[in-house]
Amino acid sequence: MFIAMKPHATQAEFEAVVDKIRALGLTPHPITGTERKVVAVIGPTTGLDPDDLFGTMTGVAEALRVSQPFKLVSREVKEEDTVIDVGGVPLGGKAIAIMAGPCSVESRDQILEAAHAVKKAGATFLRGGAFKPRTSPYEFQGLREEGLKLLAEAREQTGLRVVTEVKDTETLPMVADYADVLQIGARNMQNYSLLEKVGAIDKPILLKRGLSATIREWLMAAEYIVSKGNFKVALCERGIRTFETMTRNTLDINAVPVLKSLTHLPVVVDPSHGIGLRPHVPAIARAAIAAGADGLIIEVHPHPEKALSDGHQSLTPAEFEELMKQARVIAGAIGRPILAR
Amino acid sequence: MFIAMKPHATQAEFEAVVDKIRALGLTPHPITGTERKVVAVIGPTTGLDPDDLFGTMTGVAEALRVSQPFKLVSREVKEEDTVIDVGGVPLGGKAIAIMAGPCSVESRDQILEAAHAVKKAGATFLRGGAFKPRTSPYEFQGLREEGLKLLAEAREQTGLRVVTEVKDTETLPMVADYADVLQIGARNMQNYSLLEKVGAIDKPILLKRGLSATIREWLMAAEYIVSKGNFKVALCERGIRTFETMTRNTLDINAVPVLKSLTHLPVVVDPSHGIGLRPHVPAIARAAIAAGADGLIIEVHPHPEKALSDGHQSLTPAEFEELMKQARVIAGAIGRPILAR
Amino acid sequence: MFIAMKPHATQAEFEAVVDKIRALGLTPHPITGTERKVVAVIGPTTGLDPDDLFGTMTGVAEALRVSQPFKLVSREVKEEDTVIDVGGVPLGGKAIAIMAGPCSVESRDQILEAAHAVKKAGATFLRGGAFKPRTSPYEFQGLREEGLKLLAEAREQTGLRVVTEVKDTETLPMVADYADVLQIGARNMQNYSLLEKVGAIDKPILLKRGLSATIREWLMAAEYIVSKGNFKVALCERGIRTFETMTRNTLDINAVPVLKSLTHLPVVVDPSHGIGLRPHVPAIARAAIAAGADGLIIEVHPHPEKALSDGHQSLTPAEFEELMKQARVIAGAIGRPILAR
Amino acid sequence: MFIAMKPHATQAEFEAVVDKIRALGLTPHPITGTERKVVAVIGPTTGLDPDDLFGTMTGVAEALRVSQPFKLVSREVKEEDTVIDVGGVPLGGKAIAIMAGPCSVESRDQILEAAHAVKKAGATFLRGGAFKPRTSPYEFQGLREEGLKLLAEAREQTGLRVVTEVKDTETLPMVADYADVLQIGARNMQNYSLLEKVGAIDKPILLKRGLSATIREWLMAAEYIVSKGNFKVALCERGIRTFETMTRNTLDINAVPVLKSLTHLPVVVDPSHGIGLRPHVPAIARAAIAAGADGLIIEVHPHPEKALSDGHQSLTPAEFEELMKQARVIAGAIGRPILAR
Repeated sequence: MFIAMKPHATQAEFEAVVDKIRALGLTPHPITGTERKVVAVIGPTTGLDPDDLFGTMTGVAEALRVSQPFKLVSREVKEEDTVIDVGGVPLGGKAIAIMAGPCSVESRDQILEAAHAVKKAGATFLRGGAFKPRTSPYEFQGLREEGLKLLAEAREQTGLRVVTEVKDTETLPMVADYADVLQIGARNMQNYSLLEKVGAIDKPILLKRGLSATIREWLMAAEYIVSKGNFKVALCERGIRTFETMTRNTLDINAVPVLKSLTHLPVVVDPSHGIGLRPHVPAIARAAIAAGADGLIIEVHPHPEKALSDGHQSLTPAEFEELMKQARVIAGAIGRPILAR
Repeated sequence: MFIAMKPHATQAEFEAVVDKIRALGLTPHPITGTERKVVAVIGPTTGLDPDDLFGTMTGVAEALRVSQPFKLVSREVKEEDTVIDVGGVPLGGKAIAIMAGPCSVESRDQILEAAHAVKKAGATFLRGGAFKPRTSPYEFQGLREEGLKLLAEAREQTGLRVVTEVKDTETLPMVADYADVLQIGARNMQNYSLLEKVGAIDKPILLKRGLSATIREWLMAAEYIVSKGNFKVALCERGIRTFETMTRNTLDINAVPVLKSLTHLPVVVDPSHGIGLRPHVPAIARAAIAAGADGLIIEVHPHPEKALSDGHQSLTPAEFEELMKQARVIAGAIGRPILAR
Repeated sequence: MFIAMKPHATQAEFEAVVDKIRALGLTPHPITGTERKVVAVIGPTTGLDPDDLFGTMTGVAEALRVSQPFKLVSREVKEEDTVIDVGGVPLGGKAIAIMAGPCSVESRDQILEAAHAVKKAGATFLRGGAFKPRTSPYEFQGLREEGLKLLAEAREQTGLRVVTEVKDTETLPMVADYADVLQIGARNMQNYSLLEKVGAIDKPILLKRGLSATIREWLMAAEYIVSKGNFKVALCERGIRTFETMTRNTLDINAVPVLKSLTHLPVVVDPSHGIGLRPHVPAIARAAIAAGADGLIIEVHPHPEKALSDGHQSLTPAEFEELMKQARVIAGAIGRPILAR
Repeated sequence: MFIAMKPHATQAEFEAVVDKIRALGLTPHPITGTERKVVAVIGPTTGLDPDDLFGTMTGVAEALRVSQPFKLVSREVKEEDTVIDVGGVPLGGKAIAIMAGPCSVESRDQILEAAHAVKKAGATFLRGGAFKPRTSPYEFQGLREEGLKLLAEAREQTGLRVVTEVKDTETLPMVADYADVLQIGARNMQNYSLLEKVGAIDKPILLKRGLSATIREWLMAAEYIVSKGNFKVALCERGIRTFETMTRNTLDINAVPVLKSLTHLPVVVDPSHGIGLRPHVPAIARAAIAAGADGLIIEVHPHPEKALSDGHQSLTPAEFEELMKQARVIAGAIGRPILAR
């Protein structure tokens, strides 16, 4: 259930609504960032009539039931696109954000070289993993805090915003200290303890889709975060698991328009993991923009052939520059700019 | 194995190669439409050394093994894009072909209204099913020959080329009499008897991907057709089956660049079946063009709410006109025109 | 909709019902082999009230709507298990039928050796492909009529009933001349022209599940056959396509109890294609019986290492004998015999 | 790489091997519970020749490379089945363990009634969730510590061993205090931080398969646990995600024999989540035993119609008693007892 206030409703009228929600034993969730004030109501609302209860209160424009199981992230409750403020850089909204960098931070030279290269080509966010969840316990697991420090240094030199993965609640405070955007990886999409913890801090989150997560489950995972108070969530499509073996995953382009209609959260696409084949990353990047994505996250490595992980899907700086040109052209064709600083 | 002749090789030099192939108990498949003459060699070639056998013959440029199990459809054997001549209209090549029309031919009024509408909006091909394979034996199965006659009448009035499904070998001669392009449906992708029969006639084929076909199996199905002599084959991505239930199928956008690198055949995308949700068809159509598709096939119905099949995914003529505008813009952005007559 | 007659209803009462169905513009399908006479009603029955129309006619026990989209194959319409008479040998019912033999008929020696071996071990049906639909046009496609003749000779020598695949409508009359049971392969599960043709002849059909067919679609495919008059249909689970790559397919054991509750048709399981790994075929065969399968179809080759197809999943005669012992024990444990002659 | 000692090798000979491994900068993992002493060698062994390095040391029987990416859990390294000692009750080995109980602990009455019922029917383990990871943040999340206390009380009254899910590292110490076996849920299968933490404690683990995890990934997840020193790991197949919608998941029966050949760890099957339909749970339970499972975990609720979660797939105590009878018969047929106390 949610209640939308009239444009000029007073604070007192608004508080009366909130008080009534609490009096019913339910939880009010004020939704910020919308033109009109809206309150989502969470709890056992079955059998209650929104209009009866709230419709006649002064200052209330309308009181309606939310039909979807995801509430706070739904467009029903908030029509306008969410624009996340990442230290002054917008994620979401008209301009398309480009995130780029290596799969893993491997060394000072590597990350600084990558950062300067993607900055020069026009990226505004630097990606790079310091904590790497790997299928095998015997593989390279990342530089950990050392990697975070290098990312921070790269930010200082370039002004890029840093996107990096947080893999557990233990290292969350440390990662949050260094990162501008916290990435939740595909394997952690339903790690509810982690979702609740990142929901309780004030930091933008990039929530990757699980390998076999339905769109509904993915939005429910976002709802976990938002229900704890953190509305700064962007969704990242990174390919699902199917029977096809020629591509690493099957990037689900269909998710882009479906999400844009169901939720107000920004939608980012990861062509690098999605198709997993370097020569085809630009084609998928173009498709993502054409389909309506609000951002791209692209693996770029100064020397892909020497990468400790994902080298086969990482672009060289020169290839990324070429991709950026194509991205600008496609974005222009649909009337959107690529975010520039 | 395949043998490429030098640019100015003589007919006699070429025939000497063909004779030698036959003398080895193998089958020569000359590949037409390439700048240089090429012969694919089919049969038990394991253990034979292409260079030893053919490399020193006069007029031979190179003799190589084909690494892929699909041979004649592979880019290894023929580098240039195949352009299919559909009665003077090219399918494949630089210009992007647009096919549009209703799922089923339902009546004279319906198909003529649809044909004129899609023609006006800029399509060059008219789609429409006269024989409809349906999941249930109790559902509408199409107008059959009556439907084919109506398609022919629509062609006469509009000049559009007619794409229609052939569902079995029994009705193949009849459908081939009326159609310009024969569509093989997803459920028939591995109906090898049908593939062999359409491989033996001189008619362009639009081969849809099976619901759970890998890209390799799909190319092998195309190879069935081509190995019988019909090189006029286009591939149509129409969505695969995954666990996602919010969309009808999962249109596999990744297949577009992968196919374009593996095969010389044109690649068409069907956003209507692919996502199966009318509001999202244009986004997927834009993505398909951006990813490199050579054509689109779109369901358009004058009155989708009255359609006997697939109404929920059919565009109105007005929606299709808007989609065409967007398609032109995206095509322009990647330097390709939409095919016009 | 279906109408069940009272146990002692007269032929005249029954015919009155059939006449009334026809008078309504609908099609009556009498269901045979049940204790009570039942007529399924096919056609546009929406809006009609079964009880109003037929409930008060003399001799009618009940008139009800069928809730499932599959009608004639549904347990709602016919409660008793269908037992198919294969020239005196029952397929379906209490005794579990064992079908065994090579993937392809390769030579007289091979098929006769296989037939005698599986007969000796206790099989009652001989499987063997004479027409082999293969992914590649360049692979062995079967011995064709020569293969059928060898199967007939093996039947003569052993008394085994012959199960062999029919791959298209062209060769259907020839295959039907030799075979006792016509197998429809997975790739042809939705080849509706073929289904309609085998529905119009009086020959038992073994309908394999398509690689990505839902249970509902599979039952609808069976309905295609039965709606043309041939009620002698058995279903064969042979594995579905998933993301798992360690096994050839994913044998869907869940389909067995689900089918047994939804349909009266016999359910056969094919562990050989299902898991595709020789050492694990017996485990899956045991599981299939324990789950309630009415039959097994097993690939057995006198010399699997020399097989032209599927050698890696074919058992040797000795391994098959051991599997039969295990099958008898599991069947005994659930109170069912293995069918013996 | 792994090194197997001769049966009568001395402790000094064994230590010489361990020292040499360390001297090479590698990590020795002694494998316990085998007839012969074995040491797995973890680290960058590429380029090293096991036989050269260790083959001639006294007391060494053989030194070989492990071909699989999972090492310590592989049958190559340890041939004998692992039998986990759960407070005197064996999990793994010849006798089949039965775990049963409600999805969630809901109340004292409910869990005690369930515990006594499943004990009476012959179970040796009690399942019940105190921490429930739920798709929606607004659903019942479990009784938490209160639930754990009730499970402990049920154990005291019945002697059953308690299996319960641990959902994060924060609550791990608390759950480990009460539980006999810690279940890692499907969504946490690749929560590597949690895997590493449970790998560092001395408590049996039941590792469920992720919804779209390959068998290889699942074994790698087990390797994470074992590589930290905890060899008491059992694997639990609980269904994978496919396109089929009639069943909740697709229980992958094929995983049972494949796992039994690849790993020495016990394999448990969860028919309740696997098929998700109460009437069909017994058929899948029988199939699991017939296929070689070492245990079953079954949802049983005193009043399924009132269950707060999973009621549609929970058996009544009477149904469970009937299932146990069937389980005993099938187990007997393959020469294995049901574990009894």
